[in-house]
Amino acid sequence: MKNILIASTSTLANENYLEYLLPELQLHFQNCNTILFVPYARPGGISHQEYTTMVGLAFAKINKKVIGIHEFEDAAEAIKNAEGIFTGGGNTFVLVSQLYKNNVMEILSEVIKNGTPYLGTSAGSNICGLTMQTTNDMPIVYPPSFKTLGLIHFNLNPHYLDPDTSSKHMGETRETRIKEYHAFNTVPVLGLREGSWLDVKGDTITLKGHLTARLFRQNQIPEELEPGTDLNFVK
Amino acid sequence: MKNILIASTSTLANENYLEYLLPELQLHFQNCNTILFVPYARPGGISHQEYTTMVGLAFAKINKKVIGIHEFEDAAEAIKNAEGIFTGGGNTFVLVSQLYKNNVMEILSEVIKNGTPYLGTSAGSNICGLTMQTTNDMPIVYPPSFKTLGLIHFNLNPHYLDPDTSSKHMGETRETRIKEYHAFNTVPVLGLREGSWLDVKGDTITLKGHLTARLFRQNQIPEELEPGTDLNFVK
Repeated sequence: MKNILIASTSTLANENYLEYLLPELQLHFQNCNTILFVPYARPGGISHQEYTTMVGLAFAKINKKVIGIHEFEDAAEAIKNAEGIFTGGGNTFVLVSQLYKNNVMEILSEVIKNGTPYLGTSAGSNICGLTMQTTNDMPIVYPPSFKTLGLIHFNLNPHYLDPDTSSKHMGETRETRIKEYHAFNTVPVLGLREGSWLDVKGDTITLKGHLTARLFRQNQIPEELEPGTDLNFVK
Repeated sequence: MKNILIASTSTLANENYLEYLLPELQLHFQNCNTILFVPYARPGGISHQEYTTMVGLAFAKINKKVIGIHEFEDAAEAIKNAEGIFTGGGNTFVLVSQLYKNNVMEILSEVIKNGTPYLGTSAGSNICGLTMQTTNDMPIVYPPSFKTLGLIHFNLNPHYLDPDTSSKHMGETRETRIKEYHAFNTVPVLGLREGSWLDVKGDTITLKGHLTARLFRQNQIPEELEPGTDLNFVK
């Protein structure tokens, strides 16, 4: 049975890394002593080890040990044997490129579908959708494909941001960008605001946190979904 | 001799399309009766014809006729025969995909290097760099390559936006994104604010408009360049 947390962001303003999620993570990873961390998204280009050390400090607060996937000879084996898995944020293009380079996109999807508890934040959440095509990130490397884990039947836009009506900037709003996506694609997109996460238990996909989430579908008016909504109907 | 205008945006807040650039365009396209328009970036997914009609209305104010490249049987021939060329904004992934699909990336680069007057705005400016890897756009389609026209020896970030220091949003600032680009790439990046453009005449690349532009180089502190600066030294 799938057991997945998909969070918009790792960190809220003026809080420590993962702080707002720790009570949830204690429950989510209750049967795990060790978490396999996938540091491939490398925020700001930091090294896999630097990133893993930072994540280890956060998980130490709930008495979990963290090991980076880069520490294993065989990344696929590490995924198969993991008690729980966390993929952190950073750049989605870098993350997806590295998953393909190490040939682990498929096995990662497989073990999560089979029940290995998974946490994704930001880029690590983006890859839970069918494709990474609604990421906010810059295409700083060229991945062999935009296809991702397909753990849910829609795509995600983490760090979803409402239009700033006072702005004079002429760049596209997030909503405009997602509408543009739907000029070329049919997959629904969920705009997940910072502080929101999805709790996937088997076929149930519950919106958690205090905020509504914005659902975009091709040729339809966007819809605000209340916390507690089961998103299993979105496909 | 290269004769190129590379503008951050087509439109300033509370102005009409191309309005702030029209005096400049009158000069730039002085020897052209007809402008070949490349509508491939399709902002908001509008059709090539809708986009071309809109651009035609703007250019009519300086007595230029506009023909969309989609109106020609042979896109490469249209480019070869063009008196002047304009590529409008929209989605850079869509634009680059279509340029490759129609097999015109190379010929477009060639005629512009040989002197056909060119105007790019936003996505149409982005492709003037070596790659499209510092676009702000969503990867809504998968292009066969990120390589672009290479008319200048650096990359561009149009619609460059300074960090909003009052924001509680945890998504990356533009500066953070470009720094991340430089964790993986050596090509310099110019952040071009809305209202700025580059005027390329042969080997001289002059920053125009009233604003400074922000130059990012790998492992260096970003630099503000004054209007009037010749950017030929950036490579």
